[in-house]
Amino acid sequence: MNIYDIAEKSGVSIATVSRVLNGSDKVSEKTKEKVMKVMTEEDYTPNIFARGLSGESTRAIGVLVPDISDNYMSRAVAFIERRLHEKDHNMLLSCSGFRAKEKEDHIRMLLEERIDAMILVGSTYAGSETLSHNTYYIKKAAEKKPLFLINGDMDAENIFCTFSNDYAVSLDLTKSLIENGRKKILFLTDSESYSANKKRAGYEQALSDAGIAVSPSLMCHIRNNIEETAAYLEELRPDFDACFATDDAMAVGVLKYAMKHGIRVPEDLSIIGYNNSELALATTPELTSVDNKLEKICDDTVIRLFSVLSGNSFVPRRTSVACTVVKRGTTNY
Amino acid sequence: MNIYDIAEKSGVSIATVSRVLNGSDKVSEKTKEKVMKVMTEEDYTPNIFARGLSGESTRAIGVLVPDISDNYMSRAVAFIERRLHEKDHNMLLSCSGFRAKEKEDHIRMLLEERIDAMILVGSTYAGSETLSHNTYYIKKAAEKKPLFLINGDMDAENIFCTFSNDYAVSLDLTKSLIENGRKKILFLTDSESYSANKKRAGYEQALSDAGIAVSPSLMCHIRNNIEETAAYLEELRPDFDACFATDDAMAVGVLKYAMKHGIRVPEDLSIIGYNNSELALATTPELTSVDNKLEKICDDTVIRLFSVLSGNSFVPRRTSVACTVVKRGTTNY
Repeated sequence: MNIYDIAEKSGVSIATVSRVLNGSDKVSEKTKEKVMKVMTEEDYTPNIFARGLSGESTRAIGVLVPDISDNYMSRAVAFIERRLHEKDHNMLLSCSGFRAKEKEDHIRMLLEERIDAMILVGSTYAGSETLSHNTYYIKKAAEKKPLFLINGDMDAENIFCTFSNDYAVSLDLTKSLIENGRKKILFLTDSESYSANKKRAGYEQALSDAGIAVSPSLMCHIRNNIEETAAYLEELRPDFDACFATDDAMAVGVLKYAMKHGIRVPEDLSIIGYNNSELALATTPELTSVDNKLEKICDDTVIRLFSVLSGNSFVPRRTSVACTVVKRGTTNY
Repeated sequence: MNIYDIAEKSGVSIATVSRVLNGSDKVSEKTKEKVMKVMTEEDYTPNIFARGLSGESTRAIGVLVPDISDNYMSRAVAFIERRLHEKDHNMLLSCSGFRAKEKEDHIRMLLEERIDAMILVGSTYAGSETLSHNTYYIKKAAEKKPLFLINGDMDAENIFCTFSNDYAVSLDLTKSLIENGRKKILFLTDSESYSANKKRAGYEQALSDAGIAVSPSLMCHIRNNIEETAAYLEELRPDFDACFATDDAMAVGVLKYAMKHGIRVPEDLSIIGYNNSELALATTPELTSVDNKLEKICDDTVIRLFSVLSGNSFVPRRTSVACTVVKRGTTNY
């Protein structure tokens, strides 16, 4: 049951229902009563966070990121801030780190502040698929303020998610590597987040579809850092002909390792990064990377945030945004 | 006249003066009167922003950056946020862009919020040396809240500055290039800020000291972007044997141009960047760069901020932090 249904059943326009919800005096008492009666009959709960109902706005939005010095997250915060500023809203920024306890503490503290809503940047807040208790604290928080997840996906009341189609793009990329003769594809990730799990699932599915066994020795969980990745490979000395990394910094580390050992890129080794950061342009050859459409994700999130705050009860809770692959010198197809 | 002098003239300890300023009831009426009398006689104005006097804290600090997606600035914000969070303070983050009008608007809007103080990140807020009217709005703002500049330097009431010694490090670096036989040193900058002007002054001084004419064709003002820098050189085709860039991204652009044209680095071309960002590690060879001790600058700023807010009237207004040079593969000395 949404505002459309209420309008239809009451025989009035959506605008009229909205006016009733917002306590406007432009609606006659008779109409108001009719609409309220339908709402009661249908057990309709309007969006409790709508400002029209609560009456006052703090003009402040809480934004939580694990690490603002991370390129992906600082770009997200830049996009979000620009849109909030356009709407004359302030941003309360908090940086939680990646640990469960700290994330929980930061969310609790932000909720105590005068904010209208909270945006959580990065899929770390959506936990991992297998650990649903990791997200319990977020669901609790959403009872107090509407939450907006940037690149996280959870199906829960008052949690609005915008995320990139990491599974599909990872599946396609791995498939294209296989179609071009690569069989020993190294998968590097720095996280167990929702997004990282989707990327891994796409990688595994493509291998499985091609009848290639998934080798645990080719799936590595490391820190997202150029030097550490290069050092890791130096020790591991993996037998590989392609690499798919869930962030550009790790992919650059692989490229540096390859250059040091005279491995030809892309002839003998294909390398694909993720997030299409400035790092992808710093190397020679430049890095093939996935553009995750971060600006679009952020814009979409802020638009929906203001829609929710203005009393719109039919804002979609989950939206997917399609990534694109930017082909450069570390792949040859 | 500072709190020390008041203590001495009153014949009491600094702690007692501080208690008087903070309205503590641990001071006898007689002592209080004596201290107040000295203050009146000496026309002493205590730090008006001390919380002990205003009585209440908003527990919020306004932080203004031109561009949070910039690596230097996002790292600064990460360091600042960590320290504020430790002290149970919130950060109101605003992003102003680089234009004078917008910077002014953002500062005015932040001042209207419930904040105790404001931190301005990046030397753009200190204007340029020759354009002092550029900083008038900041001096006005400092009448309302104490301002803290990260890598800016202004001598004004209630403005507290921490900056790196860009002049000295630039002078030394250019000198070492000359001593190693380089004569045609390209200087690349993206800004006319206080910091950029210091770097340029050091570069010019070193040339002048060595009797080398400063060539306007070797001093370029461009955007801080890898691809644009490479494209710029492609068009300009400068005759140069070294490059000193005021940010790593420009230096990486120079390295890419050199690799494309088969110019040997560091044998025939030395390249030095600035800010020692992740980009400096992404290239082969890795980039020699200046570590501007950003974490130390930010820590120092936040320590002084809380000192000012706690009523300390003798916090130094200007502090310089020494940069270090991190030598890597794009120079050979």
